[in-house]
Amino acid sequence: MDHYQPDKTDLFTFGLWTVGNVGRDPFGEAVRRRLTPSEIVQKLAQLGAYGVNLHDNDLVPIGAPLKERDRIVAEFRAVLDETGMKVAMASSNLFFHPVFKDGAFTANDPKVRAFAFQKTLAAIDLAVELGAATFVFWGGREGAETDACRDPREALKRLRAAVDFFCEYALEQRYPLRFALEAKPNEPRGDIYLATTGHMLHFIETLAHPEMVGVNPEVAHETMAGLSFVHAVAQAMEAGKLFHVDLNAQRIGRFDQDLRFGSEDLKQAFLLVRLLEGTAGGERYSGPRHFDAHAYRTEDEAGVWEFARGCMRTYKMLAERARAFDADPEVRGLLAEQLDPALEPLLSGYTREKAGRLRALALDPDELSARGLCYERLDQLLVEFLLGVRS
Amino acid sequence: MDHYQPDKTDLFTFGLWTVGNVGRDPFGEAVRRRLTPSEIVQKLAQLGAYGVNLHDNDLVPIGAPLKERDRIVAEFRAVLDETGMKVAMASSNLFFHPVFKDGAFTANDPKVRAFAFQKTLAAIDLAVELGAATFVFWGGREGAETDACRDPREALKRLRAAVDFFCEYALEQRYPLRFALEAKPNEPRGDIYLATTGHMLHFIETLAHPEMVGVNPEVAHETMAGLSFVHAVAQAMEAGKLFHVDLNAQRIGRFDQDLRFGSEDLKQAFLLVRLLEGTAGGERYSGPRHFDAHAYRTEDEAGVWEFARGCMRTYKMLAERARAFDADPEVRGLLAEQLDPALEPLLSGYTREKAGRLRALALDPDELSARGLCYERLDQLLVEFLLGVRS
Amino acid sequence: MDHYQPDKTDLFTFGLWTVGNVGRDPFGEAVRRRLTPSEIVQKLAQLGAYGVNLHDNDLVPIGAPLKERDRIVAEFRAVLDETGMKVAMASSNLFFHPVFKDGAFTANDPKVRAFAFQKTLAAIDLAVELGAATFVFWGGREGAETDACRDPREALKRLRAAVDFFCEYALEQRYPLRFALEAKPNEPRGDIYLATTGHMLHFIETLAHPEMVGVNPEVAHETMAGLSFVHAVAQAMEAGKLFHVDLNAQRIGRFDQDLRFGSEDLKQAFLLVRLLEGTAGGERYSGPRHFDAHAYRTEDEAGVWEFARGCMRTYKMLAERARAFDADPEVRGLLAEQLDPALEPLLSGYTREKAGRLRALALDPDELSARGLCYERLDQLLVEFLLGVRS
Amino acid sequence: MDHYQPDKTDLFTFGLWTVGNVGRDPFGEAVRRRLTPSEIVQKLAQLGAYGVNLHDNDLVPIGAPLKERDRIVAEFRAVLDETGMKVAMASSNLFFHPVFKDGAFTANDPKVRAFAFQKTLAAIDLAVELGAATFVFWGGREGAETDACRDPREALKRLRAAVDFFCEYALEQRYPLRFALEAKPNEPRGDIYLATTGHMLHFIETLAHPEMVGVNPEVAHETMAGLSFVHAVAQAMEAGKLFHVDLNAQRIGRFDQDLRFGSEDLKQAFLLVRLLEGTAGGERYSGPRHFDAHAYRTEDEAGVWEFARGCMRTYKMLAERARAFDADPEVRGLLAEQLDPALEPLLSGYTREKAGRLRALALDPDELSARGLCYERLDQLLVEFLLGVRS
Repeated sequence: MDHYQPDKTDLFTFGLWTVGNVGRDPFGEAVRRRLTPSEIVQKLAQLGAYGVNLHDNDLVPIGAPLKERDRIVAEFRAVLDETGMKVAMASSNLFFHPVFKDGAFTANDPKVRAFAFQKTLAAIDLAVELGAATFVFWGGREGAETDACRDPREALKRLRAAVDFFCEYALEQRYPLRFALEAKPNEPRGDIYLATTGHMLHFIETLAHPEMVGVNPEVAHETMAGLSFVHAVAQAMEAGKLFHVDLNAQRIGRFDQDLRFGSEDLKQAFLLVRLLEGTAGGERYSGPRHFDAHAYRTEDEAGVWEFARGCMRTYKMLAERARAFDADPEVRGLLAEQLDPALEPLLSGYTREKAGRLRALALDPDELSARGLCYERLDQLLVEFLLGVRS
Repeated sequence: MDHYQPDKTDLFTFGLWTVGNVGRDPFGEAVRRRLTPSEIVQKLAQLGAYGVNLHDNDLVPIGAPLKERDRIVAEFRAVLDETGMKVAMASSNLFFHPVFKDGAFTANDPKVRAFAFQKTLAAIDLAVELGAATFVFWGGREGAETDACRDPREALKRLRAAVDFFCEYALEQRYPLRFALEAKPNEPRGDIYLATTGHMLHFIETLAHPEMVGVNPEVAHETMAGLSFVHAVAQAMEAGKLFHVDLNAQRIGRFDQDLRFGSEDLKQAFLLVRLLEGTAGGERYSGPRHFDAHAYRTEDEAGVWEFARGCMRTYKMLAERARAFDADPEVRGLLAEQLDPALEPLLSGYTREKAGRLRALALDPDELSARGLCYERLDQLLVEFLLGVRS
Repeated sequence: MDHYQPDKTDLFTFGLWTVGNVGRDPFGEAVRRRLTPSEIVQKLAQLGAYGVNLHDNDLVPIGAPLKERDRIVAEFRAVLDETGMKVAMASSNLFFHPVFKDGAFTANDPKVRAFAFQKTLAAIDLAVELGAATFVFWGGREGAETDACRDPREALKRLRAAVDFFCEYALEQRYPLRFALEAKPNEPRGDIYLATTGHMLHFIETLAHPEMVGVNPEVAHETMAGLSFVHAVAQAMEAGKLFHVDLNAQRIGRFDQDLRFGSEDLKQAFLLVRLLEGTAGGERYSGPRHFDAHAYRTEDEAGVWEFARGCMRTYKMLAERARAFDADPEVRGLLAEQLDPALEPLLSGYTREKAGRLRALALDPDELSARGLCYERLDQLLVEFLLGVRS
Repeated sequence: MDHYQPDKTDLFTFGLWTVGNVGRDPFGEAVRRRLTPSEIVQKLAQLGAYGVNLHDNDLVPIGAPLKERDRIVAEFRAVLDETGMKVAMASSNLFFHPVFKDGAFTANDPKVRAFAFQKTLAAIDLAVELGAATFVFWGGREGAETDACRDPREALKRLRAAVDFFCEYALEQRYPLRFALEAKPNEPRGDIYLATTGHMLHFIETLAHPEMVGVNPEVAHETMAGLSFVHAVAQAMEAGKLFHVDLNAQRIGRFDQDLRFGSEDLKQAFLLVRLLEGTAGGERYSGPRHFDAHAYRTEDEAGVWEFARGCMRTYKMLAERARAFDADPEVRGLLAEQLDPALEPLLSGYTREKAGRLRALALDPDELSARGLCYERLDQLLVEFLLGVRS
């Protein structure tokens, strides 16, 4: 009896495009056949997943006649019902077709923007029809290779107009839907607008309906730029904006690798799971744990399912280690918040009197510097809990 | 008569710590003597600068008695008056003393936080006394090597309490001061909280007085992470939050180099100057052009002044090229906005009727894809204007 | 009369796969039709190029029957003859077909290695038949995502066996062919063996026929890892191993961009052209200047030819600027080698007597440190020559 | 009884400068007092280390009179003898004093080069006197910020003249000493010559006495550039050139962090230990395991020793996990080399007959592509052994 075996209560989801990835890359052709959505749902259900996510065109081909579209959707719903799998999140693919070569909502050609609007309206309808609670915008082509082509401020205005439009559409339709914006610094464009989760969080504050819109941070996207993914997720959580999360693995400073969760940088993966699971205190993330990753190109179909199994197992192993770490008395001792009842009240909520008392404090910086902080010990404990040497 | 010779109307400023940098690095000792603030102000005035910026301890040593502090400040004001130089921006050094080894406003030790508050109150007073319009917060040590040491959400709360406190202090004192927050992804800490200008812009929206607080983006800091500095500055400008700017040069993925402005990545430097000067349209940045850079460690004092001259000259050369580029008829033709009177109104301001009209549009994505966008031509023109082959 | 108009004496070449690139990327489909080899050769000839380069399958489809292959080759030769264009370099595509998903010469499956040998023998014959002087090996798939899969030392042994095999084949056939190895740090594999030009140069020294084998460094590949491309090329030149060169542009820490030459990092491009052209002294590189780049995905066919024109023009502009810089009296003064007739002989060619004299020298490091090196001035001059402000 | 407790047979060494690091960085002052060499040796002996390494000036101040030097050395030897500690490696500090601001052996000023020769001769004598088997050259300042200052080929020639000189000195003196060259891509210089272990390995082949010279790769230095450290070490081992190794941890694309071994990227650390310990077969590295790292700046002296303890413990934990992984039957099954008795002989040792047989083989690439390689399963097993879930 393996206690890393996932079940639906773990809320693990996979995009249809993840386990469905055929292994095509810039230097090579597909190595695997395309699995049908039904095959994916059935197999993931067996493996213990909670649900799937999809782009419109993962299910319905671009330009499919309405009848064909309805038939596909009905068949897909049947498989969902049969397996008890959910569609947790949906999106519109605004990057694959050549029409989006200069972006979708930020494209210089208004006809291209209009086509992106049209496609997104239909994708939102599909999302709601399939019961998705979250609709993600990943503007993979909203960027530039030469910044001479467009004032980046104009790009922001166009993006804002689009997101505002869809918020109001959803409101009018009384759709039970939240929107989540996903940032990426570059690739496939030279630079993509709103490069990180931080930039996105700010952009959301400039929208007409900020309360409807949050972020969908992705491990690989922040990590490509060498930024702390844990800090980005923490900022989103503190702001109540972590609407969805994309889990995978990535090495810094590289092409978008979308590797199996936990297969790179186990320490950051541990810190992330610890944050999401709230083992150190603070809010626990209650949404789906989405693996936006794909199997190595060396794999056949059996390898794809090993990959999916590995994502979920490693998450559960890390959660177990995080709980043990945060329950350990030595760790708790090292992490105990230093409180100074005389000082704390001075350090927030300005008054003239507080400022006066702060100025009057006799604080010797040289003396304050002398104390060691035991962070080497703390971090070594983290490593030893992670490796299971201590438990 | 060299038309790249700067004068005060160019609003060029240098930090005292920039031309005053002694060439100390992690692997070597100082190579140059420390210049006095007076020497720096006098020489920069001769070179055509508008003013200087400073940290409290660039002028007044930490722990200096009040009398000594007043004498130093009075002497410094005298030199400013004599030369007509301004103090444009001031800051508090919250990173150099060992007391800040675990951060200042986010340090786990409340006494360290209290000392940082104390020091900052005094630095704000000094800033106002010297006539600075902007007070910058660069939290160089607000970060961690091991994220086990502190919940990053707690760090944000502490930072917010601090900035709110100083805003209210300034309001109460009726100080004519704005605050500008400066982001950096890492170095000297493993990871610094609020890693980019995007993260900072969002954080500002969560403050008690967001209208008083903007950003101070720095070329080197965004570039270290490989992010587009032009996009970051544009986002800040679009939000009315570009309160100050730090100009220098940097290679991606390296230690903080703070190189002479324009000495790396001339194309990005061109695009930045173009944006700040508004040569392509849009708002022009009206604040000081601050060079937060230092001379190579191979230089003696003469080399330092060559460095300062070079920063200013290159800015002026790039501004000239940007004006020529944006005035060129071919460039203007390529950049002419594509307007479609029938479509534009549909792409913002949702109504049910607009959604209906959008859905009904006959748009063939394959047909729309066929058009080439001439961006190779546009970018080559940019290169040729930059190189002065075309003018 | 534009003196940046290229002609055959400039030795500019393009791969068939470069201007022939259809704009497919990991997130999108092809945006341009595939040009025929004949179309490419004819158009490049008009633009002033010297020749083309090719992979076997750029010309002959994999698995083409001999008769078909011969017909294709004959037609291609006819176009070459008609236009006076040369095939300067050829290669074997060992990465695109799924068979190479685990590498070619380093694959764990000996049958895959055998297929790679078979294909390469045929590609070498084709190269010679078309008059190519250089045959390039780019082992784009010779790497791993998980290093558990193969001892990297075993991978080197397999690569060595392969290159030795082909050297001996070429010797036996008396083929007038040199081999050039091309390094890349990662993409499409997680890590590629022999990641840089430095690693390749060392590997060559371990071959059975090192004299037949040199390197083909590529701007983008060293730059992805943030390494100095100029230093890599200089090391190869100093060792007599610069057999070919791949020119393009790239930003550090990103996916392989293969941008138009000179469109990023103009300073490094200037320093590279200066080195290749020998304007500062030293050997001049006499081989073809190959542009291994492709047009932005936003472009149609006209944009592709703008791209090709731009590569060549920018190279010629930079060469002009390099000549001016190195002829300038002030620059020459700053760069004049410091010679000390008493010291120079002591600093090479050990003898006991020299060691004794060195030990006896009275050298005061503090005194020696005082001298400034004027590198800020020198670098600013470089910028001003590059921008054409000084000429 | 903790089986991760190190002892002398583990051959763990620390540089005097590592545990002796005072926590000075570009943005802050020292936070810890300087430990004496004796204190360091005594404490490390207690912790189970085998020995120490040193730069000349870690022990003897620059310019110390001979008598003073001899006294210091004698005292140091006494502590070594008393504790049974060894000096495994020594070096010359050619970077800290301002005299080396433009490099040492590559400096443009011949007097600076002469001073570097003088200092190195004395450092080599000291190394031998202390019984060091290896002398390391780390040319931290051998580089440039502006490549206009020096032809990089000239820099290589100067470096070669220096290393050749010292090889011949050692030969003449019959010193039982090997030299090891250490590469770093940048910092403190903009770019450092011979940027990676690969470049160094090639440079060694161009020396007069390549057999005396190997490499000293450092985790942090290859990792800064995002290169595979495991591949670099493997290439050095395969060439018989791994003379020494510097163990620490680092995040990609950052300033030189020199973190506690194993505190970042545990998977690469695992793969490295596996390679050094030879648990998967192949040669085992028999030299000292040197930790070239330092404690976080947040630490006091107690934290420094936690840091040292952690480096050694984590190495031993990883070695244990590597042995278990490589002994596991499932892993061995997945890694079993695929041999094909009919093919193997064709894939090395060219003959005309072999080429003929290769060409005649009926190999269908589509068929060969179908096989999955089980690398997801293999890598997941690696993760599970690393985390101690499987053992």
